Amino acid sequence: MAREDVLARLAELGFSEDDAGVLADHFLDAERRGKPSHGLVRVEWLASQSRDPRASARRVVAEPAFERWDGNGAFGYLTLAAICDAQLASPPARVRIVVASDAFPLGMLGYWVRQLASGGLVALLTSTSPRRLGSPEGGPPLAGTNPLAIGIPSSDGRPLVADVSMGRVTHGDVLLGRATDADLVPFGGEQAHKAFALAVGLQAFVEALAGGDSPGAVLLVAQPSADPVPALRALAAGVRLPGDS
Amino acid sequence: MAREDVLARLAELGFSEDDAGVLADHFLDAERRGKPSHGLVRVEWLASQSRDPRASARRVVAEPAFERWDGNGAFGYLTLAAICDAQLASPPARVRIVVASDAFPLGMLGYWVRQLASGGLVALLTSTSPRRLGSPEGGPPLAGTNPLAIGIPSSDGRPLVADVSMGRVTHGDVLLGRATDADLVPFGGEQAHKAFALAVGLQAFVEALAGGDSPGAVLLVAQPSADPVPALRALAAGVRLPGDS
Repeated sequence: MAREDVLARLAELGFSEDDAGVLADHFLDAERRGKPSHGLVRVEWLASQSRDPRASARRVVAEPAFERWDGNGAFGYLTLAAICDAQLASPPARVRIVVASDAFPLGMLGYWVRQLASGGLVALLTSTSPRRLGSPEGGPPLAGTNPLAIGIPSSDGRPLVADVSMGRVTHGDVLLGRATDADLVPFGGEQAHKAFALAVGLQAFVEALAGGDSPGAVLLVAQPSADPVPALRALAAGVRLPGDS
Repeated sequence: MAREDVLARLAELGFSEDDAGVLADHFLDAERRGKPSHGLVRVEWLASQSRDPRASARRVVAEPAFERWDGNGAFGYLTLAAICDAQLASPPARVRIVVASDAFPLGMLGYWVRQLASGGLVALLTSTSPRRLGSPEGGPPLAGTNPLAIGIPSSDGRPLVADVSMGRVTHGDVLLGRATDADLVPFGGEQAHKAFALAVGLQAFVEALAGGDSPGAVLLVAQPSADPVPALRALAAGVRLPGDS
C-alpha cells in the first residue's frame, strides 16, 4: 500500500492532512521494521475505535521538569506525536517527566523514543493498555501488555532503541490473526512471573501518576551526560543490539 | 544468625554502628522474604569487595527535580540508604530524578522502593552491575542483570512492589552455589531476546545519565496523583500481586 493510498484512506476516516501524515509514517515504519502488527492493519482498526479523528491533546501543566497532558479524546498516536514535538522544541535543562492521561492507542513505543533519541534526548516511555495479562498462577487479567521503551542517543548517529511488550504476543498479533486471545499471557515461559510483575508494576506506576480509568503513559526525557552507545556497539562486535535493523 | 551476631561481624569488617544496622536490616529482610541470594551470604562477600566501609556517598547536585550523587567509594547499600533517607526527608513537589554514579552493590532494589512507597512516594529504580548477560544470539556479555524495581504507595498500607532482574538467575544465586555462571543468561527462554533488550536498554540508560565506567543507578520519585493499588488488589481477588508475601 503506497503512502498516498494510506493518506487517502485516513482522510476518508476524517483525519486532517497533517495528522494523516503522522499516522501513515508510523504504520509504514512498522511495516519496514518487520512489525506488521503495528502497521497497515491498524488503518481500518482506527475506524473501530471510539475516538474523534479531529480531536487534539491538551497540555494542562507545563513546568520545567514536569508536564501533564490530557488526550482529550484524540487518537493516542497524535497525542504522543504532539508530546514528542513539544519535547524536541523545548528540551529539558536536565530531566522532565511527562504524564499523559487518555492516551490510547500509542502504536510502537520504540517509534517515539527513537524520535526523541534522534533529537539528542534520553527517553524512557511506558504506557498502559486494556487489561489482557493475568498472573501465571491464574485469575483475571490484571495488566495491559504495557511495553517499556528506552531510546539512547548515539554520536554514531544510530540511537539504541529497546522496546519490549510484557506479553508473549501483542494484541496486534491477534488483530493480524497470527495469535489468539489465549496467547495473550506474560512472556517468559517458566519465568513468566517476571514479565507479569513488570506488567503489573508498570500498570500501577502509570495509574498512580496519570490517574483515571483510561490508559495513560509516562515519559522521562533527559539530557545525556555520556555517550555509551558507540562503546557498547564496539563491545558487541557485530552482535545485533536492540532496535537495530 | 541473630541480628546482634550480624552487627558484630559487620563491626569487625569496619562498618560504623549505624551503617552495620542498615546492612543487617537489608540482609535479614532478604532472608525473611525468601531471597537468600541477597541475604546473609552477602556478609562475608562484602569483605571481598574493594570498597571502604567508612566511606559515605556525596550529593553533588541538589535541585528541586534533579539530584546527582557520587558513591565516593562507599558500599552501594549505604549510598542508596542515604538517597532514600534524603528523598523521604525532602520529597519532590511533583517528581525528581536521582542519578547515582559509583553505586554498587545495591542489594535488592525492591527493598529501597518499598521504603519510598511506604513513605508515600511512587518510585522506579534501576541500576547496572558488572556485565554478565550476552545476547541469545551469542557474543560477549553486554549488560548486567540490571533489575527494574517499582514501588507504589497504597492507602491499604501495603505498597505494591515489583522487582525484576533481567537474568534467569542472579549473581547471588551463583554466590550461593545454586547456579553457575553459565546460568547467567537473560530470562525468558525462547523469548530471552526481550529480557536481553531490557537489560541492554537499561544499561545504556543508566550509563547515559550517570556516566563513567562504574555501575550506577537511576531513581525516579514522584508524588502520586491516584491510589490504584486497592482496586488492583480487589480485581486480583486473592491472586498474589508482585512483592506480596
